[in-house]
Amino acid sequence: MHNRRDFIRTAAIAAGMTGIGSISEVMAAPSDKKAKAALNLSFQEGIAPGKNLNEKLDYMEKLGVVGFEPGGGGLAGRVSEIKQALQGRKIKVSAICAGFSGWLIAEDAARRKECMDTSKAIMAAGGELGSVGMILVPGFNGQQPSLPMPQAREVLIEQLKELGDFALKHGTTLLLEPLNRREAWFMRLVADAAAIAKDSGSAGIACIGDFWHMTWEETSDYGAFISGGKYLKHIHIASRKRRKMPGEDGEADNYIDGFKALKALNYTGYVSFECGTEGKREETVPAAVKLLRDQWNKA
Amino acid sequence: MHNRRDFIRTAAIAAGMTGIGSISEVMAAPSDKKAKAALNLSFQEGIAPGKNLNEKLDYMEKLGVVGFEPGGGGLAGRVSEIKQALQGRKIKVSAICAGFSGWLIAEDAARRKECMDTSKAIMAAGGELGSVGMILVPGFNGQQPSLPMPQAREVLIEQLKELGDFALKHGTTLLLEPLNRREAWFMRLVADAAAIAKDSGSAGIACIGDFWHMTWEETSDYGAFISGGKYLKHIHIASRKRRKMPGEDGEADNYIDGFKALKALNYTGYVSFECGTEGKREETVPAAVKLLRDQWNKA
Repeated sequence: MHNRRDFIRTAAIAAGMTGIGSISEVMAAPSDKKAKAALNLSFQEGIAPGKNLNEKLDYMEKLGVVGFEPGGGGLAGRVSEIKQALQGRKIKVSAICAGFSGWLIAEDAARRKECMDTSKAIMAAGGELGSVGMILVPGFNGQQPSLPMPQAREVLIEQLKELGDFALKHGTTLLLEPLNRREAWFMRLVADAAAIAKDSGSAGIACIGDFWHMTWEETSDYGAFISGGKYLKHIHIASRKRRKMPGEDGEADNYIDGFKALKALNYTGYVSFECGTEGKREETVPAAVKLLRDQWNKA
Repeated sequence: MHNRRDFIRTAAIAAGMTGIGSISEVMAAPSDKKAKAALNLSFQEGIAPGKNLNEKLDYMEKLGVVGFEPGGGGLAGRVSEIKQALQGRKIKVSAICAGFSGWLIAEDAARRKECMDTSKAIMAAGGELGSVGMILVPGFNGQQPSLPMPQAREVLIEQLKELGDFALKHGTTLLLEPLNRREAWFMRLVADAAAIAKDSGSAGIACIGDFWHMTWEETSDYGAFISGGKYLKHIHIASRKRRKMPGEDGEADNYIDGFKALKALNYTGYVSFECGTEGKREETVPAAVKLLRDQWNKA
């Protein structure tokens, strides 16, 4: 494995890939006894340029990106394809992004069951792929009718116990994602998602923090992540005005306060790109990776 | 003023008031240029033993308590009484605890106006007394019908602009208090209250954190207060299992994590007792004061 990595580094330097930044130190074996905070970058499938998954993974590897976050839709049918594409690489599956149908705070029990069933199928596939967890939103604004508070939270917690136990059996977790109010009113703050995970009483329930949504809902990236604490198992990142590549919104794209919290938490999970781009992907993607590494070092 | 303070300290020592703790360093003049975090203790009116307000204030002064938090009910009629009682003392009015009627997220506009009008009257009186702010809960669970989300938040913000501007004109603020879910579903997290204060766009809107409610809703006292940040202008404290005097619930009554955040924030507001007691007030009150000073020093 080291040979492959050295080859890539040499090849990258030989190719004069300026602006991409050095291959980072984040590839420490996960078996390391002393976990230490690291910027483990991850990409969703649409981020890297490339005509197919293998080309994208090649590109990611050259950038030192160590995580791949596939969508959950149809994941059961892609387990072999993804396993094969990752074979011999330094890249692992990070989180699985949604893909379920129905929703957990639906008034209609059938819609709730639909969400439970489809989430379980995705988590089973995600577990096979060694994923950290499947990202779930308990209810989008458009998903109506939804239960009102306090019933929504109570019904959610009840289902999370079952989903969390299922996740643990498959060696993965369910990751609650707070969104900004334009997308979901029910759960908007990292502290709230973490408290729901805590109240579920299941080690199979955790949460994520998404810098994009946090821009609109949180007063402090640092406070939000500290409140996430041990429940914080995944991070999404994007530019902070238009949800493009980090850096495309200039000065607004400051993640240092949040990164400081991740260091304080000894966070060893992934920071995963979920964003579009207004520029040429071959330029904006490596520039974003460089920006994040610079800010991580400053944090 | 210093003479009076020295007299009290001497008297306290002479009287052998063990267990009360030394009169703290928190009485630094508020005009000090370099604000520095300090444990400025405050009591609601029911906390100290004493047959009347003056006896209570005497007792508080002996303990080095520097804040007095009256209820907002009928406050306009008590301005002279309170001013007179505080004359020549080291104790100032901290926050004003509620006292308004109606609620701001009511479906019925008349109930919302009732809350606006009664809150303004209390804030005018609070301003005369030099209070930090009037504590307000936007809606208790029992106050129905209330607006659903997202309308509730939008209508609230609109009213807060007006209330915040009114507060500023009277040299005070409106302090949003998040409660635990048994009392109020609408606003339960310090981060949420701070975000609402921020979105109001008025410097007259701030928030409080109450250790009692936080016990049930927050995953991290530290994270919650950091998210409160500059919007955090008042703190309530109680024991963490039964809402008695700090210390009455034994090991559960740990506030160090929160105090660390207050120090990190350079918090110069009050930490105010809002709690009952199961024991003899003459014993549980000084014991609580001592406990908090010990924990503050450890933080």
